Amino acid sequence: MSDDVPTRPEPHHDLSDPSYRAAVVDLLGALAYGELRAFAQLAKDSELAPTLADTSALAILAAHELRNFTLLTERLRALEVNAEDAMQPFVEAVDAFHARTSSSNWLEGLVKAYVGEGIAQDFYREIANYVDADTKALVLAVLEDQGQADFAVSAVRQAIEDDARVAGRLALWGRRLVGEAITQAQRVGVERDALGGLLVGAPGSGGADLAELGRMFVRLTDEHTRRMERLGLSA
Amino acid sequence: MSDDVPTRPEPHHDLSDPSYRAAVVDLLGALAYGELRAFAQLAKDSELAPTLADTSALAILAAHELRNFTLLTERLRALEVNAEDAMQPFVEAVDAFHARTSSSNWLEGLVKAYVGEGIAQDFYREIANYVDADTKALVLAVLEDQGQADFAVSAVRQAIEDDARVAGRLALWGRRLVGEAITQAQRVGVERDALGGLLVGAPGSGGADLAELGRMFVRLTDEHTRRMERLGLSA
Repeated sequence: MSDDVPTRPEPHHDLSDPSYRAAVVDLLGALAYGELRAFAQLAKDSELAPTLADTSALAILAAHELRNFTLLTERLRALEVNAEDAMQPFVEAVDAFHARTSSSNWLEGLVKAYVGEGIAQDFYREIANYVDADTKALVLAVLEDQGQADFAVSAVRQAIEDDARVAGRLALWGRRLVGEAITQAQRVGVERDALGGLLVGAPGSGGADLAELGRMFVRLTDEHTRRMERLGLSA
Repeated sequence: MSDDVPTRPEPHHDLSDPSYRAAVVDLLGALAYGELRAFAQLAKDSELAPTLADTSALAILAAHELRNFTLLTERLRALEVNAEDAMQPFVEAVDAFHARTSSSNWLEGLVKAYVGEGIAQDFYREIANYVDADTKALVLAVLEDQGQADFAVSAVRQAIEDDARVAGRLALWGRRLVGEAITQAQRVGVERDALGGLLVGAPGSGGADLAELGRMFVRLTDEHTRRMERLGLSA
């Protein structure tokens, strides 16, 4: 371990601890509702696809999201939590994100799927560092890319090649997506003490300190920039 | 075998026969595109659901449709047919059906899923009697009810119990669905010789005669009436 990594107290990972349990339920509930909405969004986007092959490809990706949703609700059931109750606190924020970033065409939908999902997934992966090994394994499995990335990247790059003006419009769209994602994430962080506590934590809880949160924000931004570049867009 | 069942010549079920092969490819292509659109439709409808539990239930049903879609495209690939090419002839009719029966609320969506899908499935099941055993087994497996029926029936009956006026509106909606389904099915039957040939057939091809087609139509109508009754609606 190098000197500049602060040593952290061992986190409490006991599901019999009510506040830790509440945080895990929040995490799974937020993820599950996110997957459910992402599923419906991809399914709708599939109908905007320019070719039948694209329609099928996107529909298959959508079905993958639903498999993840099922994994998450099964885990909630195993924790004896009603999945709907666990999802409910996140409905407003997730729905608001989708309402404010309703894509008006096929390419916007692809950028949203790649860039919007990407930043959300990176954020959940960061949170996964603060939970027990079983929960972490599930979260990471659910977040695994199913091919969305390659699909979006090749379609968007092709569109820019066909018409360079597309790049400017989509770059603006990408910025709007990130802005809305941050707005809604902050809202959730403020409203959900347990989930927020996982990250910032009470002393000794194993959460990150402010310096670590700052580094996390830098990592999220860097990854976002990298994704925009892969699409051929300036962040 | 009773006297009033006409004996039929043994059908030609040889996939090396170009016209039989074309008919099977048409059948699989029509089914596959139907599933792909039904998938997107159910996914959209899931967002109209009044509760999160209903949203999840419908999304899970949608994902089942996509599994069927995948089975059908795999069979097409096994026949060395491009799935998109096989689906293309049916895009216009299926899309027209959905455009003309775009549900404006949750209950209309459920009735459409149950009654619209139901009549289409009965029709495909009838066609399945005229194809080889392997194709028939696949078609019947794909058409198997995954719980759509029970889900729609209990939700619609509950809605009628809450407000009896709902029944009249939904009964009209059911009639419109059947009318549009028949219009589009006739269009496909006329345009696609191979598929139509499976049913009416050239002499000796094993297709149905006119009397049998009449009986089939009666069966389809009866089943439709039965479904409407299960929903608590007059057909």
